[in-house]
Amino acid sequence: MIANDQLWMSKALQLAHRGIYSTHPNPRVGCVIVAENQVIGQGWHQKAGDPHAEVHALRDAGSNAKDATAYVTLEPCSHFGKTPPCADALIKAGVKRVVVAMQDPNPKVAGRGIARLQAAGIDVTCGVLEQEAYTLNKGFIKRMCTDMPYVTVKLAMSLDGRTAMASGESQWITSSAARQEVQRLRAQSSAVITGADTVLFDDAKLTIRSSELGLDQELTDLAMQRQPLRILIDSNQRVPLDKAFYQSPYSLTVSGVDKPEKLKEQQAWLKLPLNQQSHIDLNTLLAKLAQDYEVNELLVEAGATLAGAFVQAGLVDEFAIFMAGKFLGSSARPLLSLPLDTMSQAINLTIKDIRAVGDDWLIKAFLAA
Amino acid sequence: MIANDQLWMSKALQLAHRGIYSTHPNPRVGCVIVAENQVIGQGWHQKAGDPHAEVHALRDAGSNAKDATAYVTLEPCSHFGKTPPCADALIKAGVKRVVVAMQDPNPKVAGRGIARLQAAGIDVTCGVLEQEAYTLNKGFIKRMCTDMPYVTVKLAMSLDGRTAMASGESQWITSSAARQEVQRLRAQSSAVITGADTVLFDDAKLTIRSSELGLDQELTDLAMQRQPLRILIDSNQRVPLDKAFYQSPYSLTVSGVDKPEKLKEQQAWLKLPLNQQSHIDLNTLLAKLAQDYEVNELLVEAGATLAGAFVQAGLVDEFAIFMAGKFLGSSARPLLSLPLDTMSQAINLTIKDIRAVGDDWLIKAFLAA
Repeated sequence: MIANDQLWMSKALQLAHRGIYSTHPNPRVGCVIVAENQVIGQGWHQKAGDPHAEVHALRDAGSNAKDATAYVTLEPCSHFGKTPPCADALIKAGVKRVVVAMQDPNPKVAGRGIARLQAAGIDVTCGVLEQEAYTLNKGFIKRMCTDMPYVTVKLAMSLDGRTAMASGESQWITSSAARQEVQRLRAQSSAVITGADTVLFDDAKLTIRSSELGLDQELTDLAMQRQPLRILIDSNQRVPLDKAFYQSPYSLTVSGVDKPEKLKEQQAWLKLPLNQQSHIDLNTLLAKLAQDYEVNELLVEAGATLAGAFVQAGLVDEFAIFMAGKFLGSSARPLLSLPLDTMSQAINLTIKDIRAVGDDWLIKAFLAA
Repeated sequence: MIANDQLWMSKALQLAHRGIYSTHPNPRVGCVIVAENQVIGQGWHQKAGDPHAEVHALRDAGSNAKDATAYVTLEPCSHFGKTPPCADALIKAGVKRVVVAMQDPNPKVAGRGIARLQAAGIDVTCGVLEQEAYTLNKGFIKRMCTDMPYVTVKLAMSLDGRTAMASGESQWITSSAARQEVQRLRAQSSAVITGADTVLFDDAKLTIRSSELGLDQELTDLAMQRQPLRILIDSNQRVPLDKAFYQSPYSLTVSGVDKPEKLKEQQAWLKLPLNQQSHIDLNTLLAKLAQDYEVNELLVEAGATLAGAFVQAGLVDEFAIFMAGKFLGSSARPLLSLPLDTMSQAINLTIKDIRAVGDDWLIKAFLAA
C-alpha cells in the first residue's frame, strides 16, 4: 500500500486543484480515502465556511472509513474555525492511517493536527508530494509563514522585451489565448493590483469575464462566485471616479489623499502615508493586504514603473511573462523601469518553465536563490 | 514494405545528419538500402570530393543490392561532378525501387535524376519526410533556388531583451552550455559574419574550438577539418590587422577601402562600393557570398546595429536567440537597432520552438508568412 502513496496523493491533489478559484482566503485541500487499494471516499474544499475536504471525503466513505487510509494534501486542522477540527473527524471515523502531503504552516495548526492524530493511535506519514502541495498553496503558505502575500508579476512583451511602442500603443501584443490565461491567473488570485497610468491610459478594469475564462461550467461558476479584490494604487488621486475601473463593484484604492466624498459605497479606500518620492510604500501596503484582507496571492498587472518598483523593492516571488512572436524595435517601451549600471547589479532569475499558450509563450521565472 | 518508408527514410536522415559539419558546399545526404525488411547497406556523404551517400551504401550492400529498395534523402544526381552520377550507380546495382525524400533543387539535377531512374524501369517514390529533408539542407536549397544564402541571426539576450549594459559590459550573459551550442551553430555554417564593433570591443575571433564543441570524436574531427569562413564587415577599415581576428587563418574582410598591403596572404579582402550611408550593401554582399564562396548557411553573430541592418534589409530567414534568466534593466542595450513607431510596423515572427540549453533557453523564430 505504501508504494501507492504517491498515486493516491496525486489524486487528492487533483481534487484540491478544483478549489483553485474559490477557496480564498483558505488553502486548497483535497482528500481521498482508500481501503483495499480502492477509493472509497473523496472530497475537496470549495469555499470558506463550507466543510473541509476531509469532511466531504468521510461523508462520501460512510462507515467504510473505519480502518481505511486517508490521503490529505494539507495537515488536518486541530482547531475550531468556521468548522470543527478535521483531525477529530478522522479519529471519530476510525481511520487507521493518515498520509499528509505537508504540515500546515498556519500557526493555529503547525503540527498540532498530526500530533492529535498520533495521540489517538493513528499511523501518520507526512511529506508525500510535498513540493506539489506547496505550489498549490504557495500564497496561503507564504502568508502564514511571513504575514505577506505571494506576489506574481504578470507582464506581456514582444520577443525583444518591449511592452508597447514609445507612443504607448500596445493593443494587442499577445493573442486571445494569452488573454484567457491572464483571466485564469486573475481568478486564482486573492487580489489584483495596478497603477493609475494603466487605469488612465489602458482603461483597465481587472475584472473577470466568465466567457473569457475558458473553463468548464463547474469551475466557471466557482470562479465567478468570487471576483478577486481589484486594487488601484493612485497615490495622488489622478484617476477620475467615472472611469470604468470604478463601475464594477469591490475595488480598493490605495492613496496618499483622503477618500473622495463621491466614492460609491462598495468601493473601498485606504489612505497610507506617502514616502519622500510621493509614493505609497509597497512593503507597508503588502503587509496590510495580508493582515486586513487575507490576501494569499497578489497578481501585479501594471506598467513598467509600478512593476519595476515591486522588483526594486524585492517583493516579487514569481514572474509570469507572456512573450509574443514580434519585434517592437529599439525605441519601444521597456519591460520594467529598472535602471541598472553594471552586470553585477543584474537581477538573476531561474526560468523554470516556458510553454506555448496559443501563438504566444508563457515564461515562469523566479528570483534565483 | 511501403508502410515502412518513413521508418527507413528516418534512418537515412539520421545518417545524412552526420555530415552536418562537413559537407559544405554540398548538401547533407544519407542512404539506406533495404531488402526483406532489413538494412543491407548504408552510407552518408562526408565531404566534397568524397563519394556520395548512395555510393557508400551500394558498396556496403554489395551484390545484395539487386532488387532491393534504396532510401535517399535527396534526389540522386544525374550529372558528372567531382564524382560520377549516383542515378547510374543505382541502376547498375539493379535496385528495384528508390524512395527519395525530396527532389534536388540544384538546376543540374532538378528531377533529371528521378527521370533517369524511371527510364531504367525503377519504381520511384518522392516526398517521404520531405520537411525533415528540407530542414537538414535549408541552406543548400535556398542557395540553389534563389542564389542567396540562408541567413540565421544568432543573438544572446536577457529575459528583458537586452544584450549588454549601457557601458557595453556583457560577459557573460549566457552560460557555457549556450556558448557550446553557438560553437555547433558556427560549425554547421558555411560562413560566420560579424561587424567591426564586435571585433574591436569583444575581440571576437569566430573560430571553432574542438574542446568547446561538445561532440563525439568522429563529429569533432569532421567539424575541425573545415572552419567556417570568418567574415568581417569593416566598411572603413577600423579594425587593426594585429587584432586576434586576423591571427587565425582564412578570414574574409569586406570593406569599402582597398586591401591593406600588410594583410597576411591567407586573409582575403573583398572591396565593395559603399552606399550613401557609407555602408556595404548587404544584398550585394550576400549574392556574392552565394556565388563566389558557395555559402549555403550564413550565421550572423553581430551587435545590435549590424543584426538590425540584416533585419531591416529583410535578409533574415531564422533567429536563434539564447535567452538567459536575468534582468539587465531598462538602460541596457537593445536586442536590435530597429527604430519603429507604430504597432503596424512591428515585425511579426513565428516562434517555432523554445528549449532549455543548460540554464539558458534557445528560441527559434522565423519571419511570419
